[in-house]
Amino acid sequence: MDYAAESLKKHIEWRGKIEIVSRVPVKTREDLSLAYTPGVAEPCLAIQKDRNKSYTLTRRSDLVAIVTDGTAVLGLGDIGPEAAMPVMEGKAVLFKELGGVDAVPLCIRSHDIDEIVNTVRLLAGSFGGINLEDISAPRCFEIERRLKECCDIPIFHDDQHGTAIVTLAAVLNALRLTGKKINEVSAVINGAGAAGIAVSRLLCDSGMKNIILCDRKGALYSGRSDLNSEKQQIAETTNPEKRKGLLADIMAGTDIFIGLSAPGCVTKAMVESMNKNPVVFPMSNPTPEIMPDIAKAGGAVIVGTGRSDFPNQVNNALAFPGVLRGALDAYASDINEAMKIAAAKAIAEYITDDQINAENIIPSSLDRSVAATVAQAVAKAAKDSGVARDF
Amino acid sequence: MDYAAESLKKHIEWRGKIEIVSRVPVKTREDLSLAYTPGVAEPCLAIQKDRNKSYTLTRRSDLVAIVTDGTAVLGLGDIGPEAAMPVMEGKAVLFKELGGVDAVPLCIRSHDIDEIVNTVRLLAGSFGGINLEDISAPRCFEIERRLKECCDIPIFHDDQHGTAIVTLAAVLNALRLTGKKINEVSAVINGAGAAGIAVSRLLCDSGMKNIILCDRKGALYSGRSDLNSEKQQIAETTNPEKRKGLLADIMAGTDIFIGLSAPGCVTKAMVESMNKNPVVFPMSNPTPEIMPDIAKAGGAVIVGTGRSDFPNQVNNALAFPGVLRGALDAYASDINEAMKIAAAKAIAEYITDDQINAENIIPSSLDRSVAATVAQAVAKAAKDSGVARDF
Repeated sequence: MDYAAESLKKHIEWRGKIEIVSRVPVKTREDLSLAYTPGVAEPCLAIQKDRNKSYTLTRRSDLVAIVTDGTAVLGLGDIGPEAAMPVMEGKAVLFKELGGVDAVPLCIRSHDIDEIVNTVRLLAGSFGGINLEDISAPRCFEIERRLKECCDIPIFHDDQHGTAIVTLAAVLNALRLTGKKINEVSAVINGAGAAGIAVSRLLCDSGMKNIILCDRKGALYSGRSDLNSEKQQIAETTNPEKRKGLLADIMAGTDIFIGLSAPGCVTKAMVESMNKNPVVFPMSNPTPEIMPDIAKAGGAVIVGTGRSDFPNQVNNALAFPGVLRGALDAYASDINEAMKIAAAKAIAEYITDDQINAENIIPSSLDRSVAATVAQAVAKAAKDSGVARDF
Repeated sequence: MDYAAESLKKHIEWRGKIEIVSRVPVKTREDLSLAYTPGVAEPCLAIQKDRNKSYTLTRRSDLVAIVTDGTAVLGLGDIGPEAAMPVMEGKAVLFKELGGVDAVPLCIRSHDIDEIVNTVRLLAGSFGGINLEDISAPRCFEIERRLKECCDIPIFHDDQHGTAIVTLAAVLNALRLTGKKINEVSAVINGAGAAGIAVSRLLCDSGMKNIILCDRKGALYSGRSDLNSEKQQIAETTNPEKRKGLLADIMAGTDIFIGLSAPGCVTKAMVESMNKNPVVFPMSNPTPEIMPDIAKAGGAVIVGTGRSDFPNQVNNALAFPGVLRGALDAYASDINEAMKIAAAKAIAEYITDDQINAENIIPSSLDRSVAATVAQAVAKAAKDSGVARDF
């Protein structure tokens, strides 16, 4: 199928992929008097007295905003807020269908960090959580950090943390299959944007000790002079041997390759240079860093990509609906590392010992039970880590 | 029924009166490839090329934001953004059920005019229109004026213009019944807040020449020294004889009383002092300026209130769903005076000559055909007045 042409046709036909509907009857005067005036004054006054009652008397505990400025949409780059909307609506569809989360896309007409932070901060009382989406690096880091500081609701930048969670899930099951231990393996991550940095952090927080992050100029190491502050920071906590060199040099002798970069930058020879039983996740979309058949010819025992037409699709849709659902269910004030790791473990453990094999290390993104399992694990981790609230 | 207690109970049960649902299937990989990646890139690129395509490729042309800062909610005053949400959700229910308009409530955590204007301005690309709601006067005037200047979508402050439209509709049908002409009658409007000023303007634009607006200190006249700029401005174009005095003095000899003020400020004697066959609209909610039976005992031939348990309920719900629906249908860039007058006429003319009588001058707010009729008239007025667009 020609997805481009067919999708355009469908979008013209659909005129919007989401819709806002009423959950209450409004047929009689009595209906109106309960849902609207004069009855509605009573829940208003209850919330005025205790603001937290907004979580139980309005839609807030099912509601997130999907916020973007349209600067890093798909592989298309800065296409602007209006043009980003079809992606955000698609995301809202997945939030609802997979996680039972109501999501409102808000596309902001500004590239200015202060303006974006202010807009979201001022709207935080209307939502139970915020999903940041497709905001270009390094601006996305500061925006997320500042929003986490000034908002009393969870802030989740999916391009960072959603990717990190599903990647960790795939890594955990690859280790489970190959019998290697997370604190003994080494990984090289190509691509030091929002996703690459977040993946490095979560792997590190999960106990991986030997991680090297590469950008177009090669390995990030402490002291490299051309790094922005975010790259500098991650360089301090990764690459313990301060190895230098291009990706081809760095990959040699490592156990895991994670690609969040560009098509075709990995060759068969580079896979051959890795440790015994290498695991390769070339997740550049739609064209991977190396095609699965070539990676396997190079010796890779497990390959996962971002694509639905190959086995082992490492897809954010496995994470974000359940993560936000769990955070909302726990009335969590934050989404912290413990919750992200719990989500990754829940996704990994969703594949039973009977089911797991080299072609099946991660659930299907269409499996509607994954999100509920993830949500439960995330809500529990929120409670255990002290960010759950009781309203 | 004890609406307060019952409404609170229902709100606890409902956990939100609106919900965001998917309009597209996501059962198969193919569904995902069309609604989301990779297919979704095509409508994104189409909008990037022509931003106006966002009206036909996303939900934009059915979508408005209901924006409030929670400063003038119902009769409760400044109860804050979270506490305003039950009212905004109720409004969204009416938008959808009556007008087929999808409405997202956005409650802003700020009283600052610049912050409110900026927030809405930056989000204008995500919506087809903005309904401002329950923002206190005089801030609401500046916020609306500035948003109209800087946004390319229609801005509608319902407390002003919705009230003005339904009041004009009621006045038109009262004149129809009493056989008086709009350019020959005089009206006194008590209450010089957002609603009172907007009603004065729309009556004026509809040809009424003799309007006197009163606040707590009596008639507004050109030169009165204690007026804010908005009141000063309306004082210039009303009260042509520069009459001074309290409401009781001013009402004597007028044809129409319109109350947008406080319970009980009108007496039987004041109605008796009006012209022959006086028309009285005491719309203070829930307790009118004068109860209908007392107004009638004073000689009023037509009485309308804001209440659903008396005849002639003058209710904004007759206007806003159809007005926004019509503006969206015409891809209007603005909601201008011509569109508001067209809406009022459509509401008035919805009552046929066979149906009209002193107890039936305005349709029921539960009549689901009113909004469609209003929408048609508004869309036509948008075209005729040059603010419709063709996308």
